[in-house]
Amino acid sequence: MQAVGIVVEYNPFHNGHLHHVNEAKRTTNSDVAVAVMSGQFLQRGEPALVDKWHRTKMALASEVDIVIELPYIFSTAQATGFASGAVQLLEAMQCTTLAFGSEQGSITPFLNTFHLIESNRTLYNAIIKETIQQGKSYPQALFAAYEQLKQLSPNAYIDLGQPNNILGFHYVEAMEQLQTVMRPATIQRIAAGYHDAIDTDSEIASATGIRQALFSGQSLEQVTQYLPEASIEQLGHWQAEHGRFASWESFWPLLQYAILRHTPQQLKQYADVSEGLENSLIKYARSSSNFVEFMNAMKSKRYTWTRLQRMLTHVYTGVTKEQLHANSSPTYIRILGMTSAGQQYISRIKKSLSLPLISRVAAVSDPILAIDLHATQMYQLGIQQFSNKKIDEDYKTPPIRY
Amino acid sequence: MQAVGIVVEYNPFHNGHLHHVNEAKRTTNSDVAVAVMSGQFLQRGEPALVDKWHRTKMALASEVDIVIELPYIFSTAQATGFASGAVQLLEAMQCTTLAFGSEQGSITPFLNTFHLIESNRTLYNAIIKETIQQGKSYPQALFAAYEQLKQLSPNAYIDLGQPNNILGFHYVEAMEQLQTVMRPATIQRIAAGYHDAIDTDSEIASATGIRQALFSGQSLEQVTQYLPEASIEQLGHWQAEHGRFASWESFWPLLQYAILRHTPQQLKQYADVSEGLENSLIKYARSSSNFVEFMNAMKSKRYTWTRLQRMLTHVYTGVTKEQLHANSSPTYIRILGMTSAGQQYISRIKKSLSLPLISRVAAVSDPILAIDLHATQMYQLGIQQFSNKKIDEDYKTPPIRY
Repeated sequence: MQAVGIVVEYNPFHNGHLHHVNEAKRTTNSDVAVAVMSGQFLQRGEPALVDKWHRTKMALASEVDIVIELPYIFSTAQATGFASGAVQLLEAMQCTTLAFGSEQGSITPFLNTFHLIESNRTLYNAIIKETIQQGKSYPQALFAAYEQLKQLSPNAYIDLGQPNNILGFHYVEAMEQLQTVMRPATIQRIAAGYHDAIDTDSEIASATGIRQALFSGQSLEQVTQYLPEASIEQLGHWQAEHGRFASWESFWPLLQYAILRHTPQQLKQYADVSEGLENSLIKYARSSSNFVEFMNAMKSKRYTWTRLQRMLTHVYTGVTKEQLHANSSPTYIRILGMTSAGQQYISRIKKSLSLPLISRVAAVSDPILAIDLHATQMYQLGIQQFSNKKIDEDYKTPPIRY
Repeated sequence: MQAVGIVVEYNPFHNGHLHHVNEAKRTTNSDVAVAVMSGQFLQRGEPALVDKWHRTKMALASEVDIVIELPYIFSTAQATGFASGAVQLLEAMQCTTLAFGSEQGSITPFLNTFHLIESNRTLYNAIIKETIQQGKSYPQALFAAYEQLKQLSPNAYIDLGQPNNILGFHYVEAMEQLQTVMRPATIQRIAAGYHDAIDTDSEIASATGIRQALFSGQSLEQVTQYLPEASIEQLGHWQAEHGRFASWESFWPLLQYAILRHTPQQLKQYADVSEGLENSLIKYARSSSNFVEFMNAMKSKRYTWTRLQRMLTHVYTGVTKEQLHANSSPTYIRILGMTSAGQQYISRIKKSLSLPLISRVAAVSDPILAIDLHATQMYQLGIQQFSNKKIDEDYKTPPIRY
């Protein structure tokens, strides 16, 4: 049996994701697809629309065979840490290939780009540093450095202005640096751009577009055409139970309280709070009455929205710099769910796994897992605020079998 | 002009309080009554029903001439610290007498009790220590030690089983130890016991009874007979604006989040979190779905409800041991409000004051005041949760003139 690995958030799982998983299996000739999925908090520094169990069910109903959890410390990290955690877990799951979607659509330019940067690392870092000092954001600096490097040699390179190419680059980089047995492959993304609004003439919409539609008050029926049936069903379940989807806006009363409860000095202990941001946090939490107002006050040229949101995620969950930096590699594989084919694959590799497999968490003591359980609890308190129902707890939920 | 000092919470101001202030002025032959009033958090470790501004207005409409704020570090302290802060502020306000209500009703037994304990302090402390080691609560131990000391000499002593006698004892103790110019006096309490439920045949009910009636869903009209008109008016304003009164039950979502956001180690930094209570806090915050359920789980023989609530107040506001212990004496007098007679009195003593008088806080930098402003903000976030309205902010509200 051969497995292809994919790195996902499924927030929510839509037709583009279905295309991706089908193509990943088809083009790599794999029997099963293993998805490493972010838990309750995502790479853009946001709580997921619905919890990880609902998203796992969407995936298992739509061609994904195994869902494992990308721990919080990776799922909320910058691209390098995020990719490194995901790659290590898929390698540990003995996937033959990691297949990511990209605007580029072929793998050679990714490898070319990696080698170009790798062999000019010193120059590359120097340009990044200089550009940041000129007041640009990190992504802007990265892009500028790359544009200069490309002049050095006339190969085919990827366009690092495209969000999925950037992610893909980090997967390739992680695989090369970790010297994984697993090899990279890429699937051409179709139709919708990463952040595009929805287009009613298409069956493909970006997750961002779908979320925007849902938060702007559109009903589930109005986004049905972009989602597999299982996704509609899971989103419907959630909505019926909790009344609304999770968002920073709905978590705002707790976030505001978390910020204002602390002194600037105390806030600095939380991951990503640095460079005087602790003072802005307090100043603007005091003067803002909702999340968007707060973010518009916080935002500056220097910090991207994503950078700020990641910091807010850590303040919200109370995860400290110390906790985040004490751990850098996955120490276990946590199964969130599997199909019968997935279960068969796991039975085959079980004896040769390099990391322990966790299906029930209550008995396990691990610092990375402890952060995940904690983050789940914080997510749950956010939901409980507007819904009186407790959501499934990490301690109680066994892997979902589909 | 002569002033009598009183120590109050007015949660809310009722007919018994009106009797007390009138009697305090009459029996001491004073022109004005100066009340030192707890701010948003009270000595039993609870948020006040309505904020300090509404309570100040109740007082000024009902014979109190000046209301000054008892800072958070004293208003949420054990009896000794509470009394010491209040006594120092009334002494600084140059009150001739401090008149407290008591079950006892005459002052000599208080002085006798103080001298009995003072001259047998070593024995007294030894008995308290031993009784606590036997698993009794602090108030129980104090009572047991006192009963033994009374056998030593046949004077008239107070009954320390009565809550207002205990408070009175601490005022007398503070005055004696601080050697204040101000002298103690006591007013016989009438009718309702400290914690009694309301009695419909009387015009006097305890604040506890009135709060219980309000929280059990009774309307303001049903408690009208126990309250001066100004109190009904202020409670009515609050209710119209915020929908309900502040309580731990309504602050519970934030308190639960504050507890669970932290590790046990982090919780220990907050005042009064000690002796393994940090672990119980997390354990029971996880399993409880409201405040009463949580408290019933937390309560043990060892800790009184009040002791636990005081700890929760500090966890809720985020006030640390370090902040609380860095400050032990009042450093300013903050005027919350005054009548024209009160204003006249202040004009007379203004030049000879031993502490600076604060009427607008924005420009003042003082660590004790900073904690008060912070506590007000935390109270405000608790209210905002169920009311979408911001309550008056400390930074903006000048002293109330009545």
